Amino acid sequence: ANPLKLAIIPGDGTGPEVTQEALKVLEAVSKLEKFTYTTNFLDWGGERYLKTGETLPAGGVAELKKYDAVYLGAVGHPDVKPGILEKGLLLELRFQLDQYVNLRPVKLFPGVECPLVGKGPADIDFVVVRENTEDMYAGIGGWLKKNTADEVATQTAVYTRKGCERIIRWAFQYTQKRNNPKGKMLTLVAKTNVLTYGHDLWWRTFQDVQKEFPDVKADYNHVDACCMWMVKNPEYYDVIVTTNMFGDIITDLGAMIQGGLGVAAGGNINPDKGGISMYEPMGGSAPKYTGQNVINPIAAIAAMSMLLEHSGQPAAGARVMKAVQTITGTKMKSQSAGKMGHGTKEIGDLVVGAL
Amino acid sequence: ANPLKLAIIPGDGTGPEVTQEALKVLEAVSKLEKFTYTTNFLDWGGERYLKTGETLPAGGVAELKKYDAVYLGAVGHPDVKPGILEKGLLLELRFQLDQYVNLRPVKLFPGVECPLVGKGPADIDFVVVRENTEDMYAGIGGWLKKNTADEVATQTAVYTRKGCERIIRWAFQYTQKRNNPKGKMLTLVAKTNVLTYGHDLWWRTFQDVQKEFPDVKADYNHVDACCMWMVKNPEYYDVIVTTNMFGDIITDLGAMIQGGLGVAAGGNINPDKGGISMYEPMGGSAPKYTGQNVINPIAAIAAMSMLLEHSGQPAAGARVMKAVQTITGTKMKSQSAGKMGHGTKEIGDLVVGAL
Ligand SMILES: CC(C)[C@H](C(=O)O)[C@@H](O)C(=O)O
Ligand SMILES: CC(C)[C@H](C(=O)O)[C@@H](O)C(=O)O
Repeated sequence: ANPLKLAIIPGDGTGPEVTQEALKVLEAVSKLEKFTYTTNFLDWGGERYLKTGETLPAGGVAELKKYDAVYLGAVGHPDVKPGILEKGLLLELRFQLDQYVNLRPVKLFPGVECPLVGKGPADIDFVVVRENTEDMYAGIGGWLKKNTADEVATQTAVYTRKGCERIIRWAFQYTQKRNNPKGKMLTLVAKTNVLTYGHDLWWRTFQDVQKEFPDVKADYNHVDACCMWMVKNPEYYDVIVTTNMFGDIITDLGAMIQGGLGVAAGGNINPDKGGISMYEPMGGSAPKYTGQNVINPIAAIAAMSMLLEHSGQPAAGARVMKAVQTITGTKMKSQSAGKMGHGTKEIGDLVVGAL
Repeated sequence: ANPLKLAIIPGDGTGPEVTQEALKVLEAVSKLEKFTYTTNFLDWGGERYLKTGETLPAGGVAELKKYDAVYLGAVGHPDVKPGILEKGLLLELRFQLDQYVNLRPVKLFPGVECPLVGKGPADIDFVVVRENTEDMYAGIGGWLKKNTADEVATQTAVYTRKGCERIIRWAFQYTQKRNNPKGKMLTLVAKTNVLTYGHDLWWRTFQDVQKEFPDVKADYNHVDACCMWMVKNPEYYDVIVTTNMFGDIITDLGAMIQGGLGVAAGGNINPDKGGISMYEPMGGSAPKYTGQNVINPIAAIAAMSMLLEHSGQPAAGARVMKAVQTITGTKMKSQSAGKMGHGTKEIGDLVVGAL
């Protein structure tokens, strides 16, 4: 078989440190599962931007199309104005590579402290499928009479039938495959009672597509209610499909109930033929912890597991995920930076040992 | 002094039941605090809509302007399509009466079960000031090529300098008056890194207005991070000011961490001279519990306390709030419908007894 060709963007702050642990685990699992891979490192991120003024370098998208998948550590630099790298690099890649599925499992691993009373790993195990290319993220808007007392500003959410349909259908297929023994259910999370144009399209599309999946229960929650249930009854959910903006919000809430940004990972997936997907830990670059060997690499390793799962190495992905859960369940004191009971590198070694 | 003139909209489902308890408490506290009031009942809501097709009756807004304040039980009827009463009555009143402050205290009362590990009443005590007249709630949008494969739908958030400035200034003033002994801090919650037009206006306005309040710390959180901190460190917050859409989401999350919709109340306030404000429990009409004497009236009583506090009877408002906390702290088994250890009416009586 051909080697798995990976582009690695370690990024800023602690990004490179956690990426290193993810790569350590990749190396180990590749031997055990007998596959080969190549890595090519790209120095995109805050440092490069400060030197060259470039966020996504010219030709960057074409470059990424040479790989099977992209791994991203973290971008975000204290000397770069907030928004620049997020929009210029992270969102730009999601859009340019048409990574329309933002896949964010919300799973409480064994041993991980949960901030919710009385909830354990059996209660917190669902998946959010966030649309990743439309909505308020379109960047469409403007100002009238800017900087006057009469200023009006707009920001327009744009949704397309194509965009809704492909993510909803993908989410139904995913729910079907996930095959939850408690019952297959896909919950649409939106705000149909207020966003009566945009979310009406979501609603109608959801109604149409669900007919193709008679074995999946089609469910609906308003976004505000969803935030309540995620805290009160997270066990209610199987798979959630939602818009880009609401997905941003509920997946961070999800990250918190699964133990925080130290463990939460996500995939930006283009599932179409030839599509290039990108996997990342959900946390930021945490500049203050840089170089101290204290940051939690579990999220980064989980992101590598997702990459493998979705890039033709599902057995390797599952093996990594199992090793991760062994370590959180038996060896870690906490998932917070500096309180893990081990350093960043040692956690990486422990996961390798558990493979 | 003139009597306090109240319009009462008991509404649908359990709305009338909880309203009755709030009125019982009002009657008792008016005697103790020696003020007089009048009530006029308006039958607006689902039943009337089903009979007449009217949500907000013609002349309804002019009618409300005759009162000092409005009390709303709950609207929402199983036979009315979702969205109709919300938009036609609740949102319409907020807009027509220009109730630009949606005030939602997030306070864990003594004895109330908190879903967060290790958090108590000292940790959960902050206030969300939600803008209540603009944003995605403008109802502006449309469809291109509706019901075709090429459909495009839009929904536009509109913000004005005036709208941002008045809510931000009100929130700073409120923070100043609240005078938190831990330090006065107002956190703007938005998504400036993505909503670079609309939330840029919020950001600039926040920067300008904060200069008038040098004694209040001006703080900023992205909405996704805010949802995480509300679960992880709710004690971090003093006052939050946010947009209508994000406020909808984070106040429901706030309601959950303070013990659920059985206890959470909100005010729709027009603080301008002659402005008419409206107070409501945050829960819905809970049709399935109607007439069973099982619904929790604490939120409704807390809404009455807010009404009094903001309608010239602050001592009465505070007295009700104190009585509520005595009862949650000493007499209630749970805040969930049917599990309180007492019926709806009995809880009302207990609060009256504690006044
Ligand atoms: C960094 C930011 C632009 C991004 C988003 O809003 O999508 C992040 O919050 C995320 O969820 O991946
Ligand atoms: C009923 C609905 C329109 C309303 C809103 O979205 O504002 C409700 O959720 C609230 O928060 O008061």
